[in-house]
Amino acid sequence: MSRFFSEKFNRLTPYTPGEQPQDKQYVKLNTNESPYPPSPGVAAAVAAEADRLQLYSDPECKALTRAVAGRYGVQPEQVILVNGSDEVLNFAFMAFCDQKHPAVFPDITYGFYKVFAELHGIPYREIPLQPDLGIALEDLLGLEGTLFLANPNAPTGRALNLTELDALISSNPNNVVVIDEAYVDFGAESAVELVDKYDNLLVTQTFSKSRSLAGARLGFGIGSAALIRDLQTIRNSTNPYNVNRMTAAAGVAALAEDAYYMANCRRIAETRQWTTERLEALGFTVVPSLTNFLFAGSPAIGGKELYLALKERGILVRHFDKPRIRGLVRITIGTPEQMQILLDAITSILEE
Amino acid sequence: MSRFFSEKFNRLTPYTPGEQPQDKQYVKLNTNESPYPPSPGVAAAVAAEADRLQLYSDPECKALTRAVAGRYGVQPEQVILVNGSDEVLNFAFMAFCDQKHPAVFPDITYGFYKVFAELHGIPYREIPLQPDLGIALEDLLGLEGTLFLANPNAPTGRALNLTELDALISSNPNNVVVIDEAYVDFGAESAVELVDKYDNLLVTQTFSKSRSLAGARLGFGIGSAALIRDLQTIRNSTNPYNVNRMTAAAGVAALAEDAYYMANCRRIAETRQWTTERLEALGFTVVPSLTNFLFAGSPAIGGKELYLALKERGILVRHFDKPRIRGLVRITIGTPEQMQILLDAITSILEE
Repeated sequence: MSRFFSEKFNRLTPYTPGEQPQDKQYVKLNTNESPYPPSPGVAAAVAAEADRLQLYSDPECKALTRAVAGRYGVQPEQVILVNGSDEVLNFAFMAFCDQKHPAVFPDITYGFYKVFAELHGIPYREIPLQPDLGIALEDLLGLEGTLFLANPNAPTGRALNLTELDALISSNPNNVVVIDEAYVDFGAESAVELVDKYDNLLVTQTFSKSRSLAGARLGFGIGSAALIRDLQTIRNSTNPYNVNRMTAAAGVAALAEDAYYMANCRRIAETRQWTTERLEALGFTVVPSLTNFLFAGSPAIGGKELYLALKERGILVRHFDKPRIRGLVRITIGTPEQMQILLDAITSILEE
Repeated sequence: MSRFFSEKFNRLTPYTPGEQPQDKQYVKLNTNESPYPPSPGVAAAVAAEADRLQLYSDPECKALTRAVAGRYGVQPEQVILVNGSDEVLNFAFMAFCDQKHPAVFPDITYGFYKVFAELHGIPYREIPLQPDLGIALEDLLGLEGTLFLANPNAPTGRALNLTELDALISSNPNNVVVIDEAYVDFGAESAVELVDKYDNLLVTQTFSKSRSLAGARLGFGIGSAALIRDLQTIRNSTNPYNVNRMTAAAGVAALAEDAYYMANCRRIAETRQWTTERLEALGFTVVPSLTNFLFAGSPAIGGKELYLALKERGILVRHFDKPRIRGLVRITIGTPEQMQILLDAITSILEE
C-alpha cells in the first residue's frame, strides 16, 4: 500500500472473485454463470444503444425500473437498479449499518458481506451454520443488527422457505433484513411477495445467474418505498449513472423474454438433479441445493486436491480454503454435456 | 428517509445530475456530451460481446488496461478502470481522505466533490476562486489535505497549465493531489506526464466527453503503481466487476480509433471559438474555456431567466443557482448547427 492509504483500511482484505483465466478455454464451472446465452432480443437491444452512446443514460432508469416493477408486481418506487447486485448490497451496508447497528450474517456465506463490513468499519457478528450447513431459523429471530441472508445461501445451496422467512422478518421489526436472492430463480421461494407486508425488508436479485447477463452487470433491490429512497440517496451520492445504456436495454429485453430464462432455470434444475445422483453414486456427499451449483465432497479426496486435479484436466470449480468446508468444492451446473465431462474427469481422478 | 437510515447520512444531499428529460427531443447542451457519435468500431465491438454476456467480464480488465496504458505511455499497473470517472473519484475520497487528511477543493467546481466528502464523513475545505473565476496557484501550494482539482475546472472552463500543475504537486509532497481531467482533451495540458515524477499524483479521466461514450460509463485513473494499488483494494472491496464486458470492448475499440476522437475535439474547439465570438457580439461575457462548454452570462438577462427561456424553446443548458455564478449558464458545445439554433434563440430572447 502507498504511504497515503488511509489507516482505516490497514486490515482490509478485498473480496476474491472466482478465477477468470484468460489463458485457455476451460469447462468453466467456478463462478455460477449460466451455460445458456442471453435471449435473442438482448443483442438487438444492445445494438440499438451502441449508436447513441455519446448520450448519458437516464439516471432514473425509468424504462427498466418499470419493467422490473411489472415483472415482480411492485411499484416503481420500490425498485432500485444497480451495477451488479454487489452494488446494492454495498449501499445497504452503508445505509442500514453503523456502530449502533452491526451487521449479522452466517459464518459460511457469500464472502463479500464481511468485506463490505470491513470496508465501512461496521461491526459484525457471524452466526454459525448447523452441522448440515443449514441455517437454524431460531438463530435469526430477534436479532440486534441488520441481517444479510443469502437465500439460497452460497456456497451451500440451502434455502429457508417463505414461512421461515416471514417468521424471521416479523421477529426483527426494528432491524433491516436483507434477503440476497442471487440464486432464487433455480427453485427457492422469494421474499419479494413480503415487501408490502414489512417495512424492514429489502430483497436483492441479479441478472447475472438466471438471466445470463453476468457480463452486463445488472442487479436490483426491491423493498418498501422508504428503504429504496434511502438507497437511492446513497446511489445518487455515489454514481447516479451507475447502470449504462447497453445494460439497461439488455435488461428490458431480457424481461420481455422472461419465459426463455425461466425455462433455462428448469433445465438447470433438472441437470442439477441428475448430477447430484451421479455424484452420490461416485461416493460424494452433496448438500441439497436449490441453486445453479452443488456443494459436494468425497471422503476419498480432499477439496483442494479435487479442485487442482480438475483444473489440470481443464475444468474449473471453486474451492474455499476455510474451516468446515475445506473438504468440499462448489460446482456450477452447466449443460448436461459439461456435467458429463466433469463426471468423467472425477471418475478418472478417483481411479488414479 | 426510512426509520432505518443511518443517522450519519441525516444531512447528506445527493449530487444533482443535469436534466435528462425523456418527454421530448431537446437541443441538449446541458450535460457536456459529445455531439458526435462513437467511432464505427465501437458498435462492432459491442455486438461481439452481446452474445457472451452470460460470462463475467475479466475483473482485471487486462485488454483495456493495456490499451489505456499504451495510449498514455504508462505501465498497466499505473491504471485503474472504473464505471465512469465518478467512481475513481469516490474511491480516491475513500482511500486518501479521513479525519486527519481533509479534502480540499475550489468553492466553485464539480459539485460531486462535496457530496463524496459528506458521504464518507470527510472534513473538507473550499478554496475561493478569484474574481475572474480562475484559480490562484498560490492558494494551492503547501496545503494540508488531499486536493481535488478539476483541470480544466467545471463549470468555469478555466485551466492551470503544466508548469503550474508541476509546481502545485511538488509543493504538496505529503498530500495526494487528484487532477480530474474530464475535459482535458479539448485543449488543456494533461498532468499524466508527471505521474512518474511524483508518487502523490493521481490523474482521472473519462471516456464520456471527448470519446463519445457517456452512455457506456467508462473512466480511468492513472498514477503511481502504489496509489493505483490502494484504489484497486477499494475497488476489489466494492465491485470487482465494475466495468462490464460491452463497455470494456467499446473502450478498446475507441482507443484503436483515437484519431477520430481527437479530430472531434479539434472541431469542438473551433466551434467553441466561433460560439464565443458570437456570444460576445451579443453582449455576453464568456469565461475563457479549454473545455467542451462555455460559461457565459449577459447583464441583459439573469442566468435562470435565460435557462428557462431557452428550455421553453426546446434548448437545454445548465444553470447553477449558487452565489457568484447565478448570472451565468453553462452551454455545452454541440455541432455548429446546434450552436446556430442556440444563438438564434438567444437573439430572439434578448429582443423580446
